[in-house]
Amino acid sequence: MMKRRASRPVNIGGVTVGGGAPVIVQSMTNTDTRDAAATIEQIRGLEEAGCEIIRVAVPDRRAAEAIVDIKKGISLPLVADIHFDYRLALAALESGADGLRINPGNIGDEDRVKQVVLAAKERSVPIRIGLNAGSLPKTQYRSGSVAARMVNAALAYVRQMEALDFNLIKISLKAFDVPTTIEAYRLIAEQVPYPLHVGITEAGTPRTGVIRSSVGIGTLLWLGIGDTIRVSLTAPPVEEVTVAYEILKSLDLRARGPVLVSCPSCGRSEADVIGLAQAVEERLAKVTKPVRVAVMGCVVNGPGEAKDADVGIACGKGRGVIFKKGQKLRTVEEADYLEALMKEVESL
Amino acid sequence: MMKRRASRPVNIGGVTVGGGAPVIVQSMTNTDTRDAAATIEQIRGLEEAGCEIIRVAVPDRRAAEAIVDIKKGISLPLVADIHFDYRLALAALESGADGLRINPGNIGDEDRVKQVVLAAKERSVPIRIGLNAGSLPKTQYRSGSVAARMVNAALAYVRQMEALDFNLIKISLKAFDVPTTIEAYRLIAEQVPYPLHVGITEAGTPRTGVIRSSVGIGTLLWLGIGDTIRVSLTAPPVEEVTVAYEILKSLDLRARGPVLVSCPSCGRSEADVIGLAQAVEERLAKVTKPVRVAVMGCVVNGPGEAKDADVGIACGKGRGVIFKKGQKLRTVEEADYLEALMKEVESL
Repeated sequence: MMKRRASRPVNIGGVTVGGGAPVIVQSMTNTDTRDAAATIEQIRGLEEAGCEIIRVAVPDRRAAEAIVDIKKGISLPLVADIHFDYRLALAALESGADGLRINPGNIGDEDRVKQVVLAAKERSVPIRIGLNAGSLPKTQYRSGSVAARMVNAALAYVRQMEALDFNLIKISLKAFDVPTTIEAYRLIAEQVPYPLHVGITEAGTPRTGVIRSSVGIGTLLWLGIGDTIRVSLTAPPVEEVTVAYEILKSLDLRARGPVLVSCPSCGRSEADVIGLAQAVEERLAKVTKPVRVAVMGCVVNGPGEAKDADVGIACGKGRGVIFKKGQKLRTVEEADYLEALMKEVESL
Repeated sequence: MMKRRASRPVNIGGVTVGGGAPVIVQSMTNTDTRDAAATIEQIRGLEEAGCEIIRVAVPDRRAAEAIVDIKKGISLPLVADIHFDYRLALAALESGADGLRINPGNIGDEDRVKQVVLAAKERSVPIRIGLNAGSLPKTQYRSGSVAARMVNAALAYVRQMEALDFNLIKISLKAFDVPTTIEAYRLIAEQVPYPLHVGITEAGTPRTGVIRSSVGIGTLLWLGIGDTIRVSLTAPPVEEVTVAYEILKSLDLRARGPVLVSCPSCGRSEADVIGLAQAVEERLAKVTKPVRVAVMGCVVNGPGEAKDADVGIACGKGRGVIFKKGQKLRTVEEADYLEALMKEVESL
């Protein structure tokens, strides 16, 4: 596995999703969209954290109009998230949204969807068909598994858009249940050429939502599925971006900043590995280059892992050995572990 | 997928691993094993958190002897973790260890391994062949991918044990690199009938190690691979156990305590979803029954998710709707969200 599914590239405000492009990290603001200044400030923070596409909720006309001002203050592509009222989608397009996300479960009848699609087509703006298990169309698709019903509902919208000669399509099929989500994406992946936006919906607070998102998004990415990801957390959105990158880094799909290898410590270790690893992590927070650092508590796996890292320390009793690019550099006293390690990181 | 791989059951001090048993959660102490009192105290805390098998490092003879006292103070099966010196494995068996973990990369020559295996066989004590990418045997298995080298080294030890008519075997093949780890387990899963102990080694601090472990262990479990798991974190070991259960819960493989569904909040929400979800999570920490609670910030997916939960709230502007077992119970004022929701949780 890990061979990525081939998908059609879609351009969203200059960022390519699909078609072999890197997996794009996105998030969503939780400011009041009508407050352009607050929304711009949050988006700038997200961009600094590595966010590559930003979505804003558009619950009313004033929010749709605020997109004009928000766009002036940001450089990220902006996707307008629309529910219930197709006119808000039209207004968001007029305001210069780079993408739309609509939920076929609630956007209205065929004619309304058609108006939105034709307006998007005129401006070459992609639309994400964003289905959630919690808001499946109630009147159709009653039979089959939740995953199959999500896929069938999404396919009906895909066919409708294709019939209008529109193919700037992305699709998401999110559920809280991880096996359901994986199943839905696997099914749709075989049936359409469009890029897939992957996530676990309403995944929860950082404590549990990070785990649920990592299992679900991670498994799908390992299966080769996913052109852009959004980690949903009940938390400030910048946390979603840092978690997204850690998921991608764990599968070697993106590089961003340092990777810290550290052992769990055990009865064998004669060093304060937990304290040292935490201190190293804090210092690495300011490092942006993709450096691999190892903090190891004993001689079992210590030298092996430390040698594999760009910089590593294998701690013994009161003394540790510093490695750099596979070479043993020197032995240092316990009091000097942190500074000796960071000095080598900075010298890279 | 999600059909679990068939494996041979192995009994470790009364706990069955493999053979269709639930995926067993384990951890490792980081106290000095020679300090029996401190080790017992940590193990009791781990058991309370849900740990089902505990491993202790045995770096010297005094640690091996301390197992006698530790066993008197705990009820969990105890696995002795041995490196370098086969005599410590023999001593741990004499002290009553319920399982051994040895690393074929460093335990010594064939005759030494034979002595350990025969002593374990006499007592019907299982042995885990615990290979790590960081400590592969250096002199053999030079060619092929890291995963293939790990598998080949493990298979050689399996064959050696089988030749001694010993089959109380578990195997682990851990690396820091997630795709390597997944590949190694997939390869060995097809070649042996033994239960597999799954984990990502030296995964790091909670911030990143939780993500790396969730992606790796989660993907393997989704593939049906894994009879027992250990999450390795540079943190107090009780955190490893709570993360392990969240991974298992996300794939519906184990139930333990509440599941909190909560939306990420966005510009659409008119409630403080982050604050409410955090408060609910804190209150749920004392709840042990497997209840599903939803905290939703608006009407888009709110009612759908809240209806699916045992208890849920869909917040609107200043007022929210409480659901219980799919039924709308009542509308509550914003100030009463937390208490109204918790009252229904407690009444379940």
